Amino acid sequence: MNYSVYFEQNRELHLEELKQWLSIPSISALSEHKEDVNRAASWLADKLTLAGLENVEIIPTQGHPLVYAEHLHAPGKPTLLIYGHYDVQPVDPLHLWQTPPFEPAIRDNKIYARGATDDKGQVFMHIKAVEAILRQEGQLPVNIKFFIEGEEEVSSPNLLDYLSKGADRLTADAVLISDTALIEKGKPAICTGLRGLCSLEVAVHTANTDLHSGSFGGGVPNALHAMVSLLASLHDNQGAVSVAGFYDDVEPLSPAMKEEFAKQGVDEETLRTGLGLETLYGEDDYSFVERVGARPTLELNGVYGGFQGEGTKTVIPKEAHAKITCRLVANQNPQDILDKIERHLREHIQPGARLEIIQGEKANAFNIDPSHPMLQSAADAFERVYGTRAVFTKDGGSIPIVETFSRVLAAPVVLMGFGLPDENLHAPNEHFHLENFDKGLLTIIEYLKAL
Amino acid sequence: MNYSVYFEQNRELHLEELKQWLSIPSISALSEHKEDVNRAASWLADKLTLAGLENVEIIPTQGHPLVYAEHLHAPGKPTLLIYGHYDVQPVDPLHLWQTPPFEPAIRDNKIYARGATDDKGQVFMHIKAVEAILRQEGQLPVNIKFFIEGEEEVSSPNLLDYLSKGADRLTADAVLISDTALIEKGKPAICTGLRGLCSLEVAVHTANTDLHSGSFGGGVPNALHAMVSLLASLHDNQGAVSVAGFYDDVEPLSPAMKEEFAKQGVDEETLRTGLGLETLYGEDDYSFVERVGARPTLELNGVYGGFQGEGTKTVIPKEAHAKITCRLVANQNPQDILDKIERHLREHIQPGARLEIIQGEKANAFNIDPSHPMLQSAADAFERVYGTRAVFTKDGGSIPIVETFSRVLAAPVVLMGFGLPDENLHAPNEHFHLENFDKGLLTIIEYLKAL
Repeated sequence: MNYSVYFEQNRELHLEELKQWLSIPSISALSEHKEDVNRAASWLADKLTLAGLENVEIIPTQGHPLVYAEHLHAPGKPTLLIYGHYDVQPVDPLHLWQTPPFEPAIRDNKIYARGATDDKGQVFMHIKAVEAILRQEGQLPVNIKFFIEGEEEVSSPNLLDYLSKGADRLTADAVLISDTALIEKGKPAICTGLRGLCSLEVAVHTANTDLHSGSFGGGVPNALHAMVSLLASLHDNQGAVSVAGFYDDVEPLSPAMKEEFAKQGVDEETLRTGLGLETLYGEDDYSFVERVGARPTLELNGVYGGFQGEGTKTVIPKEAHAKITCRLVANQNPQDILDKIERHLREHIQPGARLEIIQGEKANAFNIDPSHPMLQSAADAFERVYGTRAVFTKDGGSIPIVETFSRVLAAPVVLMGFGLPDENLHAPNEHFHLENFDKGLLTIIEYLKAL
Repeated sequence: MNYSVYFEQNRELHLEELKQWLSIPSISALSEHKEDVNRAASWLADKLTLAGLENVEIIPTQGHPLVYAEHLHAPGKPTLLIYGHYDVQPVDPLHLWQTPPFEPAIRDNKIYARGATDDKGQVFMHIKAVEAILRQEGQLPVNIKFFIEGEEEVSSPNLLDYLSKGADRLTADAVLISDTALIEKGKPAICTGLRGLCSLEVAVHTANTDLHSGSFGGGVPNALHAMVSLLASLHDNQGAVSVAGFYDDVEPLSPAMKEEFAKQGVDEETLRTGLGLETLYGEDDYSFVERVGARPTLELNGVYGGFQGEGTKTVIPKEAHAKITCRLVANQNPQDILDKIERHLREHIQPGARLEIIQGEKANAFNIDPSHPMLQSAADAFERVYGTRAVFTKDGGSIPIVETFSRVLAAPVVLMGFGLPDENLHAPNEHFHLENFDKGLLTIIEYLKAL
């Protein structure tokens, strides 16, 4: 039977099932939802079993459980590991939701609920695609492993732990993840790069107490002066990072990469006015998508010290604080970058100010060559369903687990996402366009059959 | 009769009277104490009358009343305007007071109460000194006007208004104020300089919303980057102010001034270790007391923007804020300085960031030549009682009313204070050393007789 017809006939049933799952408030960050997270894992395990998968297992961890399932009856064919997550973000502020976040509602061919696009909706499509092939044909064209976690929204601590302890069971020829987005409606994308991340907190201390600017102003160090001059030294006046060696392991943009970026067709003027900016800003000689997709950045996320109340307070603050994160690309090593920044800060701190640095998160950038056959097949599958070949993009964000999979399993990771950028991920009124639910099911079928 | 003996005999009575006044919680900043402030003014007017002063008047204002009194029966002799204030600071945090702030207590020859040294105790001494002369001799050696306000702790809005409307009644040959301190026990000082003040608030705005550093980092302006580079441009790396023309109206330090500063005998090493500093910090070629007493300063009192919580947030803030005050010296005009700073900021703001500047307070610096006979007589009076000639100091703080008196009345202002620097002004356990109460009474008598 034609899969279009199959999915058409089963659409209502599928959406009712998805609504059930979306009704479970599996918020991983909030301990009062621990039981809900467990319920969402059980629901998932049941559906995987009903779909015909085998060795379905809920794997307990120190935190929320992992869910595993497999169907390994295609000897000689590649093995695909499908990763996703069944946990969701918190829902505050609740009053901004048009319909309650855990009472899924369909309006204008979109399904509204927390988790609709990120990521239950997309995980659900893979289950239904596999189920469809098994029901229609009795066997799968490839070997499949499902590996779905419940802690993606809290940085996957136990998944990383599980992977680091040896992941023989997860061995695969490719990892398939649907947790990203099309460029826009009708314009599919395969993400071939994610930036890495590192973070640090910086404190500057001067005197042992705040001082009166009348009695001491001009004669003692001011922690805020020390901090702003220190932070200002981190960039040149074009926004390029001034830390020695920061760009050492950044690859120059090849003409082919520039061409892929240009294909995204981002209109900078539209972007600028949409953000209410007088001008975009960044390193010379790069377009916006190149800056965000292929160049590293060092951002001040927070700076504070001294008086923040109304009016005037003639105080010389004894301390100041800054929070910094970097997005990393190519071969930049997060630890190396943190060490270079720390060295820069220690060299540039003014006399009389004491520096305290706490290094934080570290995640490598992810990159994959778009010419890899697994990615080309994915682009083909998109083209057959959407009528437009997927563009290979570099995303400026960070999904640390992607690089970890790629490294630990030594397998290509295919980021084949069906969301849209404006579906309110992590925000009120999260939704998922059902056009991409329908087309996505067919695209997955096409992809599995093409491998 | 010898005045030492007189004050000795009346000491207990005087201190009981002072305790009465200190018991009235005349906190000008808190509207619930409005009636207490009025009571403190009435108490003062009664005491001035009882002391023998004439035309005693409680002058209503939009806020708290002014109290005026005079004794003008010394034709051909100079007229002295004695200024002070009867309002006090709030008392929080109350639990840190060893005895309640409005239940005056004497311990170790110090009187503890809010207002003990700032400024009821010092105003009270002038009343008792004038009363003593009138009782002992029936007439004063000079003409005296008392002019005591109830809003000093809230920046004297109505006094300034009163002065600006013409102050014929206040005409005097000198203004005498006791609201400052000795350098240390046994080491009297006459303050001949106070720094002026100006303030401004600066905001930097970039996009119309906070942005995700993954999706936008490196491609858009970051308000914090714009702010720190802007603020860092305000100083060179020695702490000198980089604003064009900032020092134009600052007088170079004369050898005589340097000598007066050296006389203060501040030990910089003791100061440094007391503040827990690795090093003092400021303009080259100036000592600490010179930097604070004779050099202007531009201080960042508060800077804030972006994320201040625990952990990491990969946000690109859309705005950042700074609070700035300057202490001014010599002929620096606060409005001129504010305009120069504003020009500097507008010239140095990075592309893509929008600047918002709010100018705030403005007060001129005060300076008087120590060779003025009115000041030399004051130093003589100190010497006769303390056995040590008063040092002429420049204070880094600002008392805007001093410069206003000096300008509006075209009269020298004699800052003859009897407090000590560690008497917890504006803090819990404010107190006044009775040694300086006793010696101060005699010093005032000596001064009035010497004029």
